[in-house]
Amino acid sequence: MKIICEKEKLLEVVQIVQRAVSLKNPLPILSGIKFETKEDRVLLTATDLEIGIQCTFQAEILEEGRAVIPAKIFTELIRRLPDAPVVLESDSLTGSVKVKYGQSEANINGFPVDEFPDFPLPESETQFYLSGDILREVIRQVVFAVAADENRPIFTGVLFEISGEEVHVVATDTHRLAWRRVSLNNVGELNINLIVPGKTLNELLRIIGGSDQPVKVTITENQVLFNTDDVCLISRLIGGQFPNYRQVIPREHISRIRIKTRELAEATERAALLTREGSSIVKFNIQDNMLVISVNTEAGSVREELSVYHEGEPLQFAFNARYLSDVLKVVGSEEINIEFTGPLSPGILKPVSDMEYLSLLLPVRLREE
Amino acid sequence: MKIICEKEKLLEVVQIVQRAVSLKNPLPILSGIKFETKEDRVLLTATDLEIGIQCTFQAEILEEGRAVIPAKIFTELIRRLPDAPVVLESDSLTGSVKVKYGQSEANINGFPVDEFPDFPLPESETQFYLSGDILREVIRQVVFAVAADENRPIFTGVLFEISGEEVHVVATDTHRLAWRRVSLNNVGELNINLIVPGKTLNELLRIIGGSDQPVKVTITENQVLFNTDDVCLISRLIGGQFPNYRQVIPREHISRIRIKTRELAEATERAALLTREGSSIVKFNIQDNMLVISVNTEAGSVREELSVYHEGEPLQFAFNARYLSDVLKVVGSEEINIEFTGPLSPGILKPVSDMEYLSLLLPVRLREE
Repeated sequence: MKIICEKEKLLEVVQIVQRAVSLKNPLPILSGIKFETKEDRVLLTATDLEIGIQCTFQAEILEEGRAVIPAKIFTELIRRLPDAPVVLESDSLTGSVKVKYGQSEANINGFPVDEFPDFPLPESETQFYLSGDILREVIRQVVFAVAADENRPIFTGVLFEISGEEVHVVATDTHRLAWRRVSLNNVGELNINLIVPGKTLNELLRIIGGSDQPVKVTITENQVLFNTDDVCLISRLIGGQFPNYRQVIPREHISRIRIKTRELAEATERAALLTREGSSIVKFNIQDNMLVISVNTEAGSVREELSVYHEGEPLQFAFNARYLSDVLKVVGSEEINIEFTGPLSPGILKPVSDMEYLSLLLPVRLREE
Repeated sequence: MKIICEKEKLLEVVQIVQRAVSLKNPLPILSGIKFETKEDRVLLTATDLEIGIQCTFQAEILEEGRAVIPAKIFTELIRRLPDAPVVLESDSLTGSVKVKYGQSEANINGFPVDEFPDFPLPESETQFYLSGDILREVIRQVVFAVAADENRPIFTGVLFEISGEEVHVVATDTHRLAWRRVSLNNVGELNINLIVPGKTLNELLRIIGGSDQPVKVTITENQVLFNTDDVCLISRLIGGQFPNYRQVIPREHISRIRIKTRELAEATERAALLTREGSSIVKFNIQDNMLVISVNTEAGSVREELSVYHEGEPLQFAFNARYLSDVLKVVGSEEINIEFTGPLSPGILKPVSDMEYLSLLLPVRLREE
C-alpha cells in the first residue's frame, strides 16, 4: 500500500476509528487500525469484537494494499506532524509502515494483516433512518439510566421497541427509568425489539457530533449497524427479554408540581455538596406552592426554598441527588412537571412541552428520625 | 462575624487561598480557610505549614469576627451560588458558618478559630521588587529543572543568588541545569543567597497570572514573602549550601549549531513517541549543516532531518527527549544555539537573543552498538 493524503483528514479519521480500539484486549492485533485501499479511497477499520468502527476517506492511491498499524503510536504521531501531505507506505513482507513527511520519516512496526479479524458488514432489509439531531436527543435522554453493573447485561442496554411507525426507547437500572417516544417516517411495517449496549450509543453520540444528517440504522438478528456519510458503527445486540417497563409507570398521581428546570438543578447540586460521602440523599418537602430541598449531615446543612406551582396533597420524600441531576441535564425544557402517587412511590418527571418523554425516579426510603 | 459580599469576588479569593490548603495534612484544621474582618476588608488565610497564602477583599462588614471554614465544601458551594450578594454569618460559639443566598441558606460546620496556627508575617528590611512579567519569565525558565525527589531537598529548590543589583537564578536536578540572570533596580547593596522551594514558585506563577504589576519580595532568615496588590504568599526557605554550579558550565565549545526552536521541539516530540516506555532517549547527529534526530526501538524508528547552521566538529550524542522538550518550551526565542565540548560533555542551550539565559543538559551515554 502506498498513499498520499492530507495530515488533517488523516488525523480526523484515525481519531474516529481508534475509539473502537481496546488497549486492554488480550489479542494484540486489536490494538491496531486496519488500512485498506478501495478504489480512490482508504477504508479504516478498528474493533474490540464488541463494537467496530469503519471510516473511509479520499486519498491519492499510488499502490493498492493493506496494513494494520498500532493505533496509539500512529495517532500520536499523526497529531504531531506538520500540516502538509503525508505518505504512508506499507511493506507487505514485514508489515511495517513508513510515514513520510517533509524531509523526515518514521517506520512503525505493524501487525500481520491476515490476522485481523474479519469484519463483514451484515446485510439486512430491516432498516430505518433517523436524523442526527433527533437520534442525539433521544440517546442523551435515556442512556444515562443504563446500569453500569455488567452482571445483569440486559440493564446495560437501551431498548428500542419499534412498532409500526413509532419507536419507544427505554433504559433502566431498576432505580430509575427513562422513556422516550419518537416517530419514524416511511418505514412501512416494522415490528421489532432490540437492546443496544449503552456503550455503543455513547460512541454513536461521539460519531454523530453536532450533525443533523440522517443516520441509517440496519438491524440483523444479533447486530446493529449505524451509518453516517463516512462512518459506520457496528455493534452486537444484547440478547434476552427486556422487563415489562409499562407496568412500573404510574398512570395517576395525587400530587404534582411544576418547577423551573434550571432552578431545581442548581439547588439540587448545592444540596448534594453537603450529603455524606458515597450517598447523595436529598430531602424534598412540598407544601403551599413551595418546594423545600434539605440536607442535614455532620458537615452541616442546606435548606433551599423554591417556589413551584403545586396541585394535590402535601408531600415529603427523598431522592438520590445524582439521579435527579442526570435527568435535569437532558430533559430539554425550561420547566418540568413532577408527579407523585405517594411518598414511597416513584416520582415521574416530564418536560412541560409536547415532547413524549418521561423519567421515573424511585424515592429513597428514609429511616425514622 | 457577619459580612455581605459579591459571589464572584468571594469565589475569586477563595480559589486563590485554597491552593495552600492541604487535604492530606494530619491536622484537620488545615483543611480550612480562616476568615477575619479587618476594618472594611476580610482577610483570608490558608496554610499547609510549608507555604501560606493570604488574600484580602472588600466587603460590607455587619459584625466583626473570625471563622475557619472547610475549604473544599465551601469553595464548591460558592462556585454553585447564583450571581448575587452572599451573606456569611459565623456563630462564635459553635464555629459554624451560615451562608445565605436568595431565599436559601447553608450551614457549614467550621473549626475552632483559636486552633488555627498563628500566621505572623515576617518583617524584614531585606526587600526588592520585580515586575510580574519578569518574575514569571524567570521562574518558568528555571523551575522545570528542580528535582522531584524529596530525598535531596536542596535540589527541589531554586537558588536566588543576589549580589549588588544582579540576581542569578539557578535550578538543577543534577541531570540538567537552568540559569538566568536579571537586574534589580534601586535595591542598594543586597548580598544574599536564598533557596526557594520549586513548589512555592509554581504557586507564585498561578498567583501572578498574566499580571505585570510589581511583586514585592521580602526575605528573612528562613522565610520568603511574595506580595502582590491583594495576595501574599509566604514560604519557608530551604537550608543548606547550593552546589557550585559555575564549575559545571563549560566556557568553551568544539561545536555549535543554531536551529529554529519550534522545529527542534516538534521533531523531538515525534521522535520521543517511538522511544521505549520509561526511557526517552533520542540520538542526535550533527554534520554538514544537518541535524539528524533518530530513534530505533522494537516499535519502529524515526529519522528527522533538520537543517541547521553548524560550526565546529561533527558530533553524535543522545539526550533525554523530555528534558530537551522542557527547555525548548521556555527558552523564549525563535532560534537557539546549542554548544558542545564533546559527545559526553553537557550540551549548552542558549537563546539567540540578548537574554542572559542558558540551560545545560547532560548527554545520555549510549551502549556500544
